[in-house]
Amino acid sequence: MKRAVVLVSGGLDSATTMAIANRDGFRGHALSFDYGQRHKVELEAAKRVARSLGAADHRIAQIDLRIFGGSALTGDMSVPKNRETKTKNIPVTYVPARNTIFLSYALAWCEALGAADIFIGANAIDYSGYPDCRPEFISAFEQLAGLATKAGVEGTAFRIHAPLISMSKADIIRKGAELGVDFSLTHSCYDPTADGLACGECDSCRLRLAGFREAGLTDPIRYARR
Amino acid sequence: MKRAVVLVSGGLDSATTMAIANRDGFRGHALSFDYGQRHKVELEAAKRVARSLGAADHRIAQIDLRIFGGSALTGDMSVPKNRETKTKNIPVTYVPARNTIFLSYALAWCEALGAADIFIGANAIDYSGYPDCRPEFISAFEQLAGLATKAGVEGTAFRIHAPLISMSKADIIRKGAELGVDFSLTHSCYDPTADGLACGECDSCRLRLAGFREAGLTDPIRYARR
Repeated sequence: MKRAVVLVSGGLDSATTMAIANRDGFRGHALSFDYGQRHKVELEAAKRVARSLGAADHRIAQIDLRIFGGSALTGDMSVPKNRETKTKNIPVTYVPARNTIFLSYALAWCEALGAADIFIGANAIDYSGYPDCRPEFISAFEQLAGLATKAGVEGTAFRIHAPLISMSKADIIRKGAELGVDFSLTHSCYDPTADGLACGECDSCRLRLAGFREAGLTDPIRYARR
Repeated sequence: MKRAVVLVSGGLDSATTMAIANRDGFRGHALSFDYGQRHKVELEAAKRVARSLGAADHRIAQIDLRIFGGSALTGDMSVPKNRETKTKNIPVTYVPARNTIFLSYALAWCEALGAADIFIGANAIDYSGYPDCRPEFISAFEQLAGLATKAGVEGTAFRIHAPLISMSKADIIRKGAELGVDFSLTHSCYDPTADGLACGECDSCRLRLAGFREAGLTDPIRYARR
């Protein structure tokens, strides 16, 4: 069985991505990040998701993006609520170079494993306007991977799989449901309450709730407000 | 004055790179990494170098590349001594995706600072065969930076400066000396003795010693053996 590194945040996109990697015959090595995010409860969700989807291994890299600042997700600003998400502006929840850092780590592990495939749940449709979720970013990273590594120089063709990249949130939810993802294990909220409930008002909650509505399915997680 | 992020390892290449950034009119923000390297003493050198070259700020990011393994520099294998360095093989001191990870962090800080310039002391001539020290890697990362970031999407043209990329070690030493770098503050050894002396036998020591010889200068640091 081919091995792959799968970025697992604990959200529903990465859970569906991991289920797709399984369907495609990969043995997933789950990778999550403790990066000083205010929604650290997502790491517990990441563990549940990796376990429920049969990850061969799960590592949580400690990285501290707070040393640079610049994002609402790492505590510099507050998380916007009930924002119009269909604008073209990149919101303050953007974390500078986050997916570049995440993919760099995934590449390091992938090379150390002797694997060639990395899965990421990036999505360019019902997303929050992040530049590092676009197909052109994914392609550029794939190019870089071949040049950056010993394995690449020696002939490994690294592939960055972003199977959700052009799916709507509703399609992602339908696909996950079809592949047996247990969405009750996932966590998407940027700003959960002290007892871990989803706020229901941040961009991430609103996109998730709208996606379930559109898919005609019920979101099994609990919200403080919805 | 324009700001730039400068990767400072504590070695003579990055010290010379920082001096070049200064010469070119940048105010350097030094960035170092505590990545589980066995030669952690280089971080003390990085602090001395950043201070002596007037860094506006110096941050040390804690990242643990040991969780992936795969390199002699992070403890999986022993550091080779008195090796023939002019071969085409990539040595076991290669750390998977290291410069990709380092540049990703530099990009995050650069964007948070509102800067556009990153300096790295990568060198493709008298080097150890690392793929992520080649000009094609640097160009690919520069491309990626524009696509990966909010600043890039909004028009910032990130530039990855690798001023040493095609210089010999002797040329780097001459250039550093000309720009007033105090090489006594630097540390290059991969496998220093318990009291911090350079071993004189690893690839890094041998390249350094040969460079000073060729430049007709004396290396001011102390070696256990030379």
